[in-house]
Amino acid sequence: MADTALADAEKGSGQDANVVRVDLGERSYDIKIGRGLLATAGADIASVLPGARLAVVADETVARLHLRDFTKSLNAAGLEHSVIVVPPGESTKCFSEFERLCDEILAAKLERGDAVVALGGGVVGDLTGFAASAVRRGMAFIQVPTTLLAQVDSSVGGKTGINSRHGKNLIGAFHQPALVLADTAILDTLSLREFRAGYAEVAKYGLLGDADFFAWLETNWQAVFAGSSEREEAVARSCQAKADVVAADERESGRRALLNLGHTFGHALESAVSYETERLVHGEGVSIGMMLAHEFSERLGLLDEETTMRVRRHLTDVGLPVRTGEIPGQLPPAETLMDIIAQDKKVSRGALTFILTRGIGEAFVEKGVDPAQVLDFLKEKLAG
Amino acid sequence: MADTALADAEKGSGQDANVVRVDLGERSYDIKIGRGLLATAGADIASVLPGARLAVVADETVARLHLRDFTKSLNAAGLEHSVIVVPPGESTKCFSEFERLCDEILAAKLERGDAVVALGGGVVGDLTGFAASAVRRGMAFIQVPTTLLAQVDSSVGGKTGINSRHGKNLIGAFHQPALVLADTAILDTLSLREFRAGYAEVAKYGLLGDADFFAWLETNWQAVFAGSSEREEAVARSCQAKADVVAADERESGRRALLNLGHTFGHALESAVSYETERLVHGEGVSIGMMLAHEFSERLGLLDEETTMRVRRHLTDVGLPVRTGEIPGQLPPAETLMDIIAQDKKVSRGALTFILTRGIGEAFVEKGVDPAQVLDFLKEKLAG
Repeated sequence: MADTALADAEKGSGQDANVVRVDLGERSYDIKIGRGLLATAGADIASVLPGARLAVVADETVARLHLRDFTKSLNAAGLEHSVIVVPPGESTKCFSEFERLCDEILAAKLERGDAVVALGGGVVGDLTGFAASAVRRGMAFIQVPTTLLAQVDSSVGGKTGINSRHGKNLIGAFHQPALVLADTAILDTLSLREFRAGYAEVAKYGLLGDADFFAWLETNWQAVFAGSSEREEAVARSCQAKADVVAADERESGRRALLNLGHTFGHALESAVSYETERLVHGEGVSIGMMLAHEFSERLGLLDEETTMRVRRHLTDVGLPVRTGEIPGQLPPAETLMDIIAQDKKVSRGALTFILTRGIGEAFVEKGVDPAQVLDFLKEKLAG
Repeated sequence: MADTALADAEKGSGQDANVVRVDLGERSYDIKIGRGLLATAGADIASVLPGARLAVVADETVARLHLRDFTKSLNAAGLEHSVIVVPPGESTKCFSEFERLCDEILAAKLERGDAVVALGGGVVGDLTGFAASAVRRGMAFIQVPTTLLAQVDSSVGGKTGINSRHGKNLIGAFHQPALVLADTAILDTLSLREFRAGYAEVAKYGLLGDADFFAWLETNWQAVFAGSSEREEAVARSCQAKADVVAADERESGRRALLNLGHTFGHALESAVSYETERLVHGEGVSIGMMLAHEFSERLGLLDEETTMRVRRHLTDVGLPVRTGEIPGQLPPAETLMDIIAQDKKVSRGALTFILTRGIGEAFVEKGVDPAQVLDFLKEKLAG
């Protein structure tokens, strides 16, 4: 991916916007990134799906903050729409909300050629995308991600889904959107903690495959947080990086696994705190998980200490946690974390698969990791 | 499609079997058709998915009749499996059974490379296929259809789904199986009424695009019912006909609509009797619907009277209903049927789409049918 990742700028709807093309044959689509896109969202949607009627899904929080601006722009573009409000929070990604949402989309009497719009973060995007995939076996779907995490991660790649009592995201579909509109001005309404958590995924793209981007982030991260034009660039490069991986491997059989850098450890930590977001949100888990992946790679002799320190320094600079000890409260013992890792959906036929790294931008998939070595490593880290 | 539809015979698992290849690129799969295939199903599945663990889904009725033979063949092939039994009947195609089935598939701890098997008719196939599509965003799926209708219709094309309170099959996915095993001996356990209902779809393939097949059925239908080798041939030619259409149009944007011959009227009648199967089963609705489609085509001057009579004669010969008057009990007025048709999911942006015909094997999609003409026609038919 690397340097070519810089997205083209184009004149769109009266302002400058970056556009990242996700190349998936007949399922290809654009991600448009820019400040204030919400105001012109209606025109952008109308240009992709002329005459479509829309069902707009938002949670209560996002509805309060952004729904008026969004529907105003739909009205300005002459797009008929109905609004479906869902409760905020991860517990919304459940079967009963899925059923309710499917029913409400059908009640809105959308026909083929109409579309379902997710206005919100990852929860609303995942739930709405799955409902859009299932209603009439596939309605057109538009994403308007309102968190940094959703803009750089869940809005690219078509993964949708809900949680089951057996685990998170275990029920869902691959369903590509027809358009993604990432308004970076919306991110000013996020808490610093939530912005930082999304930034962990931004840093991940540098760490997994783009050393130049990581170096650029080391220099420019303050501007990204402040909301200067560097923010659009960071979002666009992240989307481009993910789009490149997804285009090469839409159904996650190989290279796409690289996107899980930091996620095996991170998910285990999230699960270990029962997904209590007061203690740990996803991006924080990913940050600690990425740090552990680098330290474990160093332990295996794949990585030098200086590189590990450089990664630790940047994550610490932006305010992300890098050690399990930074998680408030007690953690379970290393054995319990190992059990969680072994049950993780990325385990294939008993072998442990990890994303390891040989340097910044040089992550790779290692399918034959020795569980005993991981256990020893975790014991030490939890003790430290 | 036509004459080339005759499937190749091949030596498989120790008996003769017809194999129809459904050509969908990397999602291509075989439909194997033959008497007694259940006994060798394990070996056939193992050859497609070596080492897979299976979750076998069946309803109570099919489990009682066929599960022992099926699991015996799985054991013989060394395939680990668990069994999930669901209630029989259309009401099983609901959100709560979907949730329960997804949970049970996850509880069976299937990994990638394992598979979900539907052993049953259309209800079990549709529900199980949708669950297979959704669990981990897509598990491998195997169909062992146990009704004639499922063998010639729902086992080809990848449509899966459940019902919503807004209508049937409105929630689902396109999810292609890895293998379909159609044991024609199993059909001997069907009631004559159920066999006939499936036969309506067999006749449909002749009527929509293969005059030779229809003529062959006129000569050989008794042997098809009796269970001679003509039954395999009829199933194979039907599957091939549907496979040809589906291969040309997997997502139902154009030609696939031809498969709806008789279904617009048929669905309206099913809905009008509230899907009470004592009064009307799907195939009977299709039979009357096909007859109405021919009569309406004749009314529009597209078809001569003789052809309509020939179709009526064959459907009557096999014992299928051809007139709305054959449905026990009262039907609603024509206006109500029109309302149902207008709400039908095949309606696109207000225009009425019908499958009409210019002769046996010459059906076509007509998108601009005048609702007033349909209403007049229905009034007359309901009065007659």
